[in-house]
Amino acid sequence: MYHEMSYRVPYADTDQMGVVYYANYLEYFERSRTEMLREAGLSYSTMEKMGYFLPVSEAYCKYSGSAHYDDLLTFRSVIEEVSRVKVKIRSEVLRDGKLLVAGFVTLGCVNADFKISRLTPEMIECCKKCMAEEEN
Amino acid sequence: MYHEMSYRVPYADTDQMGVVYYANYLEYFERSRTEMLREAGLSYSTMEKMGYFLPVSEAYCKYSGSAHYDDLLTFRSVIEEVSRVKVKIRSEVLRDGKLLVAGFVTLGCVNADFKISRLTPEMIECCKKCMAEEEN
Amino acid sequence: MYHEMSYRVPYADTDQMGVVYYANYLEYFERSRTEMLREAGLSYSTMEKMGYFLPVSEAYCKYSGSAHYDDLLTFRSVIEEVSRVKVKIRSEVLRDGKLLVAGFVTLGCVNADFKISRLTPEMIECCKKCMAEEEN
Amino acid sequence: MYHEMSYRVPYADTDQMGVVYYANYLEYFERSRTEMLREAGLSYSTMEKMGYFLPVSEAYCKYSGSAHYDDLLTFRSVIEEVSRVKVKIRSEVLRDGKLLVAGFVTLGCVNADFKISRLTPEMIECCKKCMAEEEN
Repeated sequence: MYHEMSYRVPYADTDQMGVVYYANYLEYFERSRTEMLREAGLSYSTMEKMGYFLPVSEAYCKYSGSAHYDDLLTFRSVIEEVSRVKVKIRSEVLRDGKLLVAGFVTLGCVNADFKISRLTPEMIECCKKCMAEEEN
Repeated sequence: MYHEMSYRVPYADTDQMGVVYYANYLEYFERSRTEMLREAGLSYSTMEKMGYFLPVSEAYCKYSGSAHYDDLLTFRSVIEEVSRVKVKIRSEVLRDGKLLVAGFVTLGCVNADFKISRLTPEMIECCKKCMAEEEN
Repeated sequence: MYHEMSYRVPYADTDQMGVVYYANYLEYFERSRTEMLREAGLSYSTMEKMGYFLPVSEAYCKYSGSAHYDDLLTFRSVIEEVSRVKVKIRSEVLRDGKLLVAGFVTLGCVNADFKISRLTPEMIECCKKCMAEEEN
Repeated sequence: MYHEMSYRVPYADTDQMGVVYYANYLEYFERSRTEMLREAGLSYSTMEKMGYFLPVSEAYCKYSGSAHYDDLLTFRSVIEEVSRVKVKIRSEVLRDGKLLVAGFVTLGCVNADFKISRLTPEMIECCKKCMAEEEN
């Protein structure tokens, strides 16, 4: 239901509280959704070469646990909603099966001139593959 | 009503879309709330020396415009809610008076052992100084 | 002799050793040389609009002290060498007059196609203004 | 002779020149040397738990090519020198066998009070396993 990938926390991601700095989870979400889309056949870099961009219009994180240096984390994502012009993706960060951080981003679709653009049928098709079954 | 500070966007903060990468706004929010609290007499670094930490439990951003390299941005923050154990701070990023990104973080208070702790009366006092007048 | 600017260390820049993570100093050097060049009349963003880019070809840092969270640092830079195709800039990070980190970057000049390009006479002129007197 | 690992470039690492921002390679070097040391039996996080830290005293990068978004990079490292109190590690970033960036860091050993400390015999042993054969 979710695409999963692993990630090892580098020193660079920690702060002086001894945990991963809170903004870094948005970068983790990016890594996670990129791999999810790639697996569904929609490489984000290919999309950009075709002239489509997906800037983030909204982001939310709920922090319920802390990741530490050298933790081997699991990232997973699922698409919650897809419309003609935007996509909402939920992402989660876990360690040993325990949920640490969960959140979502909403991505709008724009063209090379940063004008709002419709997702192509191929993009919508791929996004639907990344939706949880009960929502699909 | 809001504490304001200026910030010049370095190349480091941009991404290949030619705009500030979305996770960096959470770092901007941190810079903004730190200066707001300092101005109210509550230096976060002093708080840590006294054994209190304010990890983020929730963060939200709404992106309505894009900041670019070398923009001179304005950051401003206001405390929306303060209870005995947490604080909710709204932050905004503007360029030439135009709102680009707005959001909030909720901070919980913990002690040096990462156990939930009450804000001290001095902390609550300072937080109240950072609330908008109609809420104060 | 050196252009100076101030910078307040955010939590984001620290790591779990309780000091600024070593890679961040290269970002500090960028902030410092950008302000030096701006003061000399050569805004890097204007240069890019004119079709010139200055990618880094070499970077070096010597770490002799540590910057901490909330430190108010001083950054300063000076141009050590300028030729027809490249510029070498020395940068330093200090706290209360004490040198913490010093280093240099060498920047090559390329055009919009990433081909090596000569610095324009105006660019060379401005760079010379940023050289220490004994070298000027 | 070199320990190797793979790394996928996220959007977060790029800048508006459309390439990986130069400071990020120092973070790549950190990821690379951490995995090299782990493979040799010396987990850096274990070392810290034993009270030893390896702050960077010097860093150098030579940029001969550019990494781009979504590139699958190879990082590799080798220990060039080890003495009783410091270690010099060379790291490289490649794409499809082509060297993009090479450099080194020198790490000093300190104890929990940030005083210079000797590497333990176990640490020296492991470091020697990471040296190139002709130097070993």
